[in-house]
Amino acid sequence: MIKESGQARIGRIITPHGVINTPIFMPVGTSATVKTLSPLELKESQAEIILGNTYHLYLRPGHKLIEKAGGLHNFMGWDRPILTDSGGFQVMSLSGLRKITKEGVRFQSHLDGSYHMFTPERVIEIQKSIGADIIMAFDECPPYPATKTYIAESMELTLDWLKRCQIANEGNEAQSLFAIVQGGIFDDLRIECAEKMIEMDFPGYAIGGLAVGEPKEDMFRITDLMGRVLPKNKPRYLMGVGTPLDLLLNIANGVDMFDCVMPTRNARKGTVFTSNGKLVVKAAKYKEDFQPLDANCDCYTCRYFTRAYLRHLFNVNEILGMRLASLHSIHFYINLIQQVRTAIMTDSLNELIDKFKEAYEQ
Amino acid sequence: MIKESGQARIGRIITPHGVINTPIFMPVGTSATVKTLSPLELKESQAEIILGNTYHLYLRPGHKLIEKAGGLHNFMGWDRPILTDSGGFQVMSLSGLRKITKEGVRFQSHLDGSYHMFTPERVIEIQKSIGADIIMAFDECPPYPATKTYIAESMELTLDWLKRCQIANEGNEAQSLFAIVQGGIFDDLRIECAEKMIEMDFPGYAIGGLAVGEPKEDMFRITDLMGRVLPKNKPRYLMGVGTPLDLLLNIANGVDMFDCVMPTRNARKGTVFTSNGKLVVKAAKYKEDFQPLDANCDCYTCRYFTRAYLRHLFNVNEILGMRLASLHSIHFYINLIQQVRTAIMTDSLNELIDKFKEAYEQ
Repeated sequence: MIKESGQARIGRIITPHGVINTPIFMPVGTSATVKTLSPLELKESQAEIILGNTYHLYLRPGHKLIEKAGGLHNFMGWDRPILTDSGGFQVMSLSGLRKITKEGVRFQSHLDGSYHMFTPERVIEIQKSIGADIIMAFDECPPYPATKTYIAESMELTLDWLKRCQIANEGNEAQSLFAIVQGGIFDDLRIECAEKMIEMDFPGYAIGGLAVGEPKEDMFRITDLMGRVLPKNKPRYLMGVGTPLDLLLNIANGVDMFDCVMPTRNARKGTVFTSNGKLVVKAAKYKEDFQPLDANCDCYTCRYFTRAYLRHLFNVNEILGMRLASLHSIHFYINLIQQVRTAIMTDSLNELIDKFKEAYEQ
Repeated sequence: MIKESGQARIGRIITPHGVINTPIFMPVGTSATVKTLSPLELKESQAEIILGNTYHLYLRPGHKLIEKAGGLHNFMGWDRPILTDSGGFQVMSLSGLRKITKEGVRFQSHLDGSYHMFTPERVIEIQKSIGADIIMAFDECPPYPATKTYIAESMELTLDWLKRCQIANEGNEAQSLFAIVQGGIFDDLRIECAEKMIEMDFPGYAIGGLAVGEPKEDMFRITDLMGRVLPKNKPRYLMGVGTPLDLLLNIANGVDMFDCVMPTRNARKGTVFTSNGKLVVKAAKYKEDFQPLDANCDCYTCRYFTRAYLRHLFNVNEILGMRLASLHSIHFYINLIQQVRTAIMTDSLNELIDKFKEAYEQ
């Protein structure tokens, strides 16, 4: 850790593929590509690390193929750090198509209905083949809402699986295994889970089971709590979050790492993030608007193209529209994080938050 | 003209947006974008000029909007030369939805069935709004096969429309109007049409009405004829052609300019052009093929990605697959043309043709 300002922190994570500065936003590259974007564009957007999804990569093209290709970095032409999730969240989401036991999760592929089994050991093996720099433990991500009894039992299962992941990953010097704290919106369970995981000693800790439908104030209360409980010298990763304001407020609570499909998914549907809030660029009102998406942005899209042009591209279903919108929104998220780092260094994060609250308060 | 080798030529066209070296291949940017590619990528592929389609641009976003944006160059962020076709070919293709009279063509939009009228004067007016460097005359492109009587009458109509285009374009210093020679596969009509047009004096001449289903030997006979009839000091443009071998053989006949959707359309469907022939990269046989698309190619795709990766991207319907394949095939076409220029300079075009005949002879 380089600097603290309140609970917010500036840090650095060293991986085999280079250094990651935190706070960090990780663009999501589900199927070995950040949708619509090239590795070159991600680098030009100053992306330092991207995320891959183990569930999707396991099904297509298959982890063994990726291993043959020399790992995911080689396969997709990305030479900076990668983090893979464990597939836990995805298989839990296959409601009706999966069965959870103490052993693991038996599930049917959403593609062809074929049967598969994910266990902690299997998930570590798959992630070893994929070869990301940071790999995630296999956890149960319970739904919201759920009873405290269910959450407590689920947490015990996650702790048991974590031990098995740790054993399966023993001796793996190339990949750092992060634990995932569960416990729903129950402070005592979260503290218990975090403390047990800290005792097991991991290079990083994720906060799982949030952004699953709970009220925002519960999310912020839990991340604030985790910001006080988790060790200061280890990165903290809030999975699947969120809007620009979510990032800012959680960074203030002490979170270091984020991933979210929001900037790219919205962009493909014609909505981008700007310093003045969301902008639905495919809307007819931009037909003759010859301004850039965001006058404060220096991305390729904003330097060369207008809202009118992007609106036209969406109107005629041209792929370049999705590309330029995605490029802008990824650049916006990464640039936001860079502003946050400066704000933490200068102890002015609250001013930055106030600025974004105006544009993004819901 | 800089150099002649047989009927093949090296030349140079000077436009308000820069010099075009000929022979030249023009990537097709139908709706103000070369599908899936950015202007930056086109420049990196060394594209010197692109083509826009008047019919499509007139319908969406509308030529008046493009004019308000400062012309097509500004609108789409492309600062090199542009050529627009006249929309003649597109409206003729709307069989059942169009009616040809001496005045012009009344047609229904393929989008919403609304009625529109294209006349020579109207088409020049639209192309002035769009603002391309080279604009095309409004012609009738007759179908194949057609009787000699029909072709002769159609040719007269095209000549009449050409006069009206020329009058409508008088005083337009910023845009060069090219005539389009018609006459089907009838040598005497082609000669008559060309001679009448030459007498009217245009800065360039296109060969229209080919690549509409006639046997290849008819196409080559007509372009060879035109190579001997059309003035040596003016560019000759064969519209809508073709395969790599089509380009080579027509260049040998004296053609200077080409446009074709083939490289980009095929690429989006997973088939690319290589120095060893076509390659269906989405095919299962490339699943574990870790070679580049074309070992002789230095495009971004071939430098960083494998057939296995592209096959995966097509398999999971990722847009990056269409992008990387399109980028490669455009680069391949432009690189081919660059090889052709060298071959003409060194009087070795036939050797290059023999090399490509092996890979591409059908």
